Amino acid sequence: MRPSPGSPTELIDAAFGGNRRALARLISLIENDPAAVSAHMGRLHAAAGRAALVGVTGSPGTGKSTLVNEVAKAYRRRGRTVGIVAVDPTSPFTGGAILGDRIRMRDLSGDEGVFIRSMATRGSLGGLARATADVVRALDAAGFEVILIETVGAGQSEVEIARTADTVLVVEAPGLGDEVQAIKAGILEIADVLVVNKADREGAGNTVRALHAMLDLGAAPRGARPHGQMLAAAVSDPHAVGGWRPPILQTIALEGKGTDELIDAIEHHRSHLAVSPEGDQRRRVRAATELEMILQEMLLDRLRQQVGPGRLQDTIDRIVAREWDPYQAARNLMEH
Amino acid sequence: MRPSPGSPTELIDAAFGGNRRALARLISLIENDPAAVSAHMGRLHAAAGRAALVGVTGSPGTGKSTLVNEVAKAYRRRGRTVGIVAVDPTSPFTGGAILGDRIRMRDLSGDEGVFIRSMATRGSLGGLARATADVVRALDAAGFEVILIETVGAGQSEVEIARTADTVLVVEAPGLGDEVQAIKAGILEIADVLVVNKADREGAGNTVRALHAMLDLGAAPRGARPHGQMLAAAVSDPHAVGGWRPPILQTIALEGKGTDELIDAIEHHRSHLAVSPEGDQRRRVRAATELEMILQEMLLDRLRQQVGPGRLQDTIDRIVAREWDPYQAARNLMEH
Repeated sequence: MRPSPGSPTELIDAAFGGNRRALARLISLIENDPAAVSAHMGRLHAAAGRAALVGVTGSPGTGKSTLVNEVAKAYRRRGRTVGIVAVDPTSPFTGGAILGDRIRMRDLSGDEGVFIRSMATRGSLGGLARATADVVRALDAAGFEVILIETVGAGQSEVEIARTADTVLVVEAPGLGDEVQAIKAGILEIADVLVVNKADREGAGNTVRALHAMLDLGAAPRGARPHGQMLAAAVSDPHAVGGWRPPILQTIALEGKGTDELIDAIEHHRSHLAVSPEGDQRRRVRAATELEMILQEMLLDRLRQQVGPGRLQDTIDRIVAREWDPYQAARNLMEH
Repeated sequence: MRPSPGSPTELIDAAFGGNRRALARLISLIENDPAAVSAHMGRLHAAAGRAALVGVTGSPGTGKSTLVNEVAKAYRRRGRTVGIVAVDPTSPFTGGAILGDRIRMRDLSGDEGVFIRSMATRGSLGGLARATADVVRALDAAGFEVILIETVGAGQSEVEIARTADTVLVVEAPGLGDEVQAIKAGILEIADVLVVNKADREGAGNTVRALHAMLDLGAAPRGARPHGQMLAAAVSDPHAVGGWRPPILQTIALEGKGTDELIDAIEHHRSHLAVSPEGDQRRRVRAATELEMILQEMLLDRLRQQVGPGRLQDTIDRIVAREWDPYQAARNLMEH
């Protein structure tokens, strides 16, 4: 039987053949009906693994989106194809992702070597992280050579998404105030390359110096692993492996300045990953993280089905009535 | 047998008797050794439920910490005891939380009616959300009448933590730039009270008008429920219940201006919760969310033990080798 038009099999065939529309539809399917695609994920997974995955995160106001556009253009000038995945966990219906898209479309549209996709929260946060991994996998399998994964915010979940990349850029900008500096401390530790954007602004030198000083303190413990923590415990943290000190680059994205040097730094980091155990470690943590997200959902779904809605409602009632605390309630359901 | 000094039972007894040091040790135990406390959570849960839980979130640079301090002082002037829980998921080892604490200590120290606790990432993100819920429960059970739960960032995970409160304040400030405006769109929907802090700054009027305009568009769908989504599906989203339009208040926290009006707005929202179905709905979603977080961890832990480390390593190897995609790998483990 021929697969129906628009079936996952057909969409994957067409996307592999370079059909952008089929790729776009495949990605929509991944977002909207993951169950329909999950059985076909093996084909995408087997074909993926060649792209350079570059995560981009940083506080609001650092000019991340503009920088991502300029990095994409610089890669295009080197003849590389580029996928951009813009992830906005805070905005389920409006705002950043869509706005960013419009600006992007004007800049990069009409270039067959660029594919742009915005993703916002649909369903759960875990679902977004998982869908992002699947969309990246689809772009990778479809042959895009560089995939830029940009997060809008710089909260923990955003950092977590960026962190699944091979190379993580953390973008800063001068003069964003003290509270932003404080946040920086937390995300600094996941940076492979630090970028001070808006480097023509007053205080850029201070920001660079402050980052150097923080790197010098960098014997500080690496951060916790929010997702994939339990399964990845068997896999040591690749971010904790020594031998790579994040370079600090200055860019003026609005004028396209510094992006070539930035790409050189990304490539340099990739070469480092290729020859150090860190590259393999990172792939293993990524696998463990994805596996854990999927397992959590499957396990909870199975428990929910086994327990049934009546018992679940009753359990929630008892917690609200303070008869059971949530731990006791969970233990009771587990014994079921 | 008398419980050993510093046992959970003894710490809870002492904390209930007003011993701050015991309360602090109990909270440390909740953070560092949750397994030791979870069996005693029933006592805390049974005694809790009286405090007003106020979540405070908003973009960096809005002056949230200063505002929280001033709100605490305003509550103290009304004779209410106040707990402050400052949550910083982005900073596992340094930065915001600790800095904020020092400023706070200078301001509020020596007041027996205030208890301040900073929490940063230890272990998993889910673990932080769960520990925050438990610390809030402990403060509530120990008799603090108002508990302010402040998050440093405004990413999805931070929003999620703030959202477990009865009343959610979303703090804005004039002139934080476009990208921040975009993020605002996402967190606006969880706001019960909107605060434009730094209201003496240029552009405050514009910010207030923009927020009013966004509220007018507010038939927009409510956001997804990142945690607790699966179990809470049975419970309709309390944020979707109509009848409450978030008031927009202006404050100048640095000068202590506007905080009394803000407290009135919080109290007004509490009265609304007491007479509408929303209060009960919110408690049910909170219970479902907590239950889900605990179950996910228990289920994954059990699976991990049943599967064993060798099989788990082998599974991760096969994903990395692209023999299995993560979905197939998860299905294989589930069939185990």
